[in-house]
Amino acid sequence: MKNISFIKWYICTILLASALFGQAQQQTKTVISPEILEDKSVIFRLYAPRADSVKLGGTMTADYSEFNMVKNDSGVFEVKIGPLAPDMYVYIFKVDGVKATDPSNKIVVRDGGFIESRLMIPGGATELYDVKDVPHGWVSSIWYPAKTAGLTRRCLVYTPPGYNKSTDSYPVMYLLHGGGGDEEAWVSRGRVNYILDNLIAQGKAKPMIIVIPNGVITNTSAPSETPLDMLLSNKPSPGIQNMVGEKVAESMVNDLIPFIESNFRVKKGRENRALTGLSMGGYQTQLISNLYPDKFDYLGVMSMGIYDRFDKNYDKEKHIKQITALNNSHPKLYWIACGKKDFLYDGVVRLLAFYDENKFKYTYRESEGGHSWENWRMYVSEFAPMLFK
Amino acid sequence: MKNISFIKWYICTILLASALFGQAQQQTKTVISPEILEDKSVIFRLYAPRADSVKLGGTMTADYSEFNMVKNDSGVFEVKIGPLAPDMYVYIFKVDGVKATDPSNKIVVRDGGFIESRLMIPGGATELYDVKDVPHGWVSSIWYPAKTAGLTRRCLVYTPPGYNKSTDSYPVMYLLHGGGGDEEAWVSRGRVNYILDNLIAQGKAKPMIIVIPNGVITNTSAPSETPLDMLLSNKPSPGIQNMVGEKVAESMVNDLIPFIESNFRVKKGRENRALTGLSMGGYQTQLISNLYPDKFDYLGVMSMGIYDRFDKNYDKEKHIKQITALNNSHPKLYWIACGKKDFLYDGVVRLLAFYDENKFKYTYRESEGGHSWENWRMYVSEFAPMLFK
Repeated sequence: MKNISFIKWYICTILLASALFGQAQQQTKTVISPEILEDKSVIFRLYAPRADSVKLGGTMTADYSEFNMVKNDSGVFEVKIGPLAPDMYVYIFKVDGVKATDPSNKIVVRDGGFIESRLMIPGGATELYDVKDVPHGWVSSIWYPAKTAGLTRRCLVYTPPGYNKSTDSYPVMYLLHGGGGDEEAWVSRGRVNYILDNLIAQGKAKPMIIVIPNGVITNTSAPSETPLDMLLSNKPSPGIQNMVGEKVAESMVNDLIPFIESNFRVKKGRENRALTGLSMGGYQTQLISNLYPDKFDYLGVMSMGIYDRFDKNYDKEKHIKQITALNNSHPKLYWIACGKKDFLYDGVVRLLAFYDENKFKYTYRESEGGHSWENWRMYVSEFAPMLFK
Repeated sequence: MKNISFIKWYICTILLASALFGQAQQQTKTVISPEILEDKSVIFRLYAPRADSVKLGGTMTADYSEFNMVKNDSGVFEVKIGPLAPDMYVYIFKVDGVKATDPSNKIVVRDGGFIESRLMIPGGATELYDVKDVPHGWVSSIWYPAKTAGLTRRCLVYTPPGYNKSTDSYPVMYLLHGGGGDEEAWVSRGRVNYILDNLIAQGKAKPMIIVIPNGVITNTSAPSETPLDMLLSNKPSPGIQNMVGEKVAESMVNDLIPFIESNFRVKKGRENRALTGLSMGGYQTQLISNLYPDKFDYLGVMSMGIYDRFDKNYDKEKHIKQITALNNSHPKLYWIACGKKDFLYDGVVRLLAFYDENKFKYTYRESEGGHSWENWRMYVSEFAPMLFK
């Protein structure tokens, strides 16, 4: 077989390439990490003979607890944790105090500035967003003119399986990320494309388009896709006004929605529009629906409460007027979801009380857990099936 | 201003989130890294008070030389290098022997298993692929049935600016990655979408579709998009046959091209098809065009020579027959590009000699440098303007 002996040649070239391209700087010892055991315990390993201390941190515990790793005679640090509930976790090593992703693990996921190694335990919640043998939608990175911001901005668009061969029009879910994140987070950490693939295949959600913009109005995009001059001049973060100011709402309504509706086969009208977001995106969902009460029939506020207490200029009367107008426009769903251990839980409780007091109709979903992607993936998988029915 | 005092609230919640979500595990000291100076020298910094040794490695030198970083009294390691030629580099720190991306730099790029921090120096070659104020094409992650492989596989598709509003059909460039990489490399490291945006805006390249498949026929996709059961069972690498065997060619011709031509507005016929690839993808370009001499009018072999010497079963007569058939089919362009310092340079010289000996027509482009993304980005920016004219 020609190609069997071809292996030798290829190995030669790879070895040569390695010598030339600094694989020499890679770990010289190969370890398996993370190793998932039968009982869903996990062993993490790092070859670090010259390090004094290696710790493991990650979302395997709600508070990102650090675990000490123990060095063996071969210079490999190791720790076993779990058993872990099936789900997607991210983790990082701390090598003599410095964060490092796991060199034995090819998969890193990024959420804003967090770049961490991925661990996925089969079964359970993982079934929601694993890549299954079902038709897959497409995820496109597109650019749109955002006149409100004076920028061309990037967003990700999920089109459902069959979209490109069909002549049908589809409803749209606008999906917003949290503070510190960007338009890539709902895909990299949220895996919303696979969640929808699976829900649609099971007949649980209607085929829909999902649009994920960048939530900071002065940013064009995730950092890697940002024009270099902006990136280099933008070292200090752009300020809260650009995340929570009314321009965020104006640009959604005046720039993004018209662009999407003229560039995709979209069913128009509020009955075909949903808006939801997590944390900062939950704030933006409130902001946008309070300012534009007639634009969306489906609203989802994840892990975000009322913002009165920390805001000296909070105007309760204005807020009441806004939600009264929204209530009178009769959205089909106003869904609020929060985990019992969310650090914003108290604000959510007070939001519900404020809504009750003002006879604003909503549905509340309280879950276990906190301000976490475990919850947000679950929430979107519960929200999507309620839409466009 | 309501939103000014809102800042306080937001800062409160972010601080609380930080405490809860392990930002405590982040560096407590903020440093600027990398810092690009006026003369395009660059200072790299890492806060690592507990580390004994920190080194810097990266593509800033052709051989990925390591630079020692020096610790100051504040626990910050620092090194200044350069001036550097404007281009995109990747780098990594080695903290007491363990690789770590730069925690002060939000941008990492991945090429296969290499996950490194990005540095982009303005001007020069960077102008080829910076995000400019020009119309942008879309990059879509799509899935297609690959019957030859018995898999549904992922590829990335660039559609040129205006594609979605137009009714025109477009020619297609099929673009192949190197060994160890996957379908994401030509975007993350190659920035081919921005290269084409810029070339098209300048009128230097015709608007075209670019299709980037995964070059390992037993892989569905990049690791993060792979079904979990495959990922967990696939720990040993899938073997060279799956990268260089004839199935790679069969699947391109029988699975991918028909899918693209029935799912995008594509101009059909060999005069509207180009095929090119780097390293392993340059081998695959030879493999596919040798087996299917009438499918592509434009062929580009980057950084890959003849594969005779290491292959005991190399069949010279068969090879001559193949290239004679290809030559007789008169492709409009057969372009070979290699850097003088490429570790495969000798094989390229011998490929040219073999082609000359057999009166096979080609165009040769020799550049400075080696087996590097600096060259491959340049090559694709030279190849694309020669197509479909």
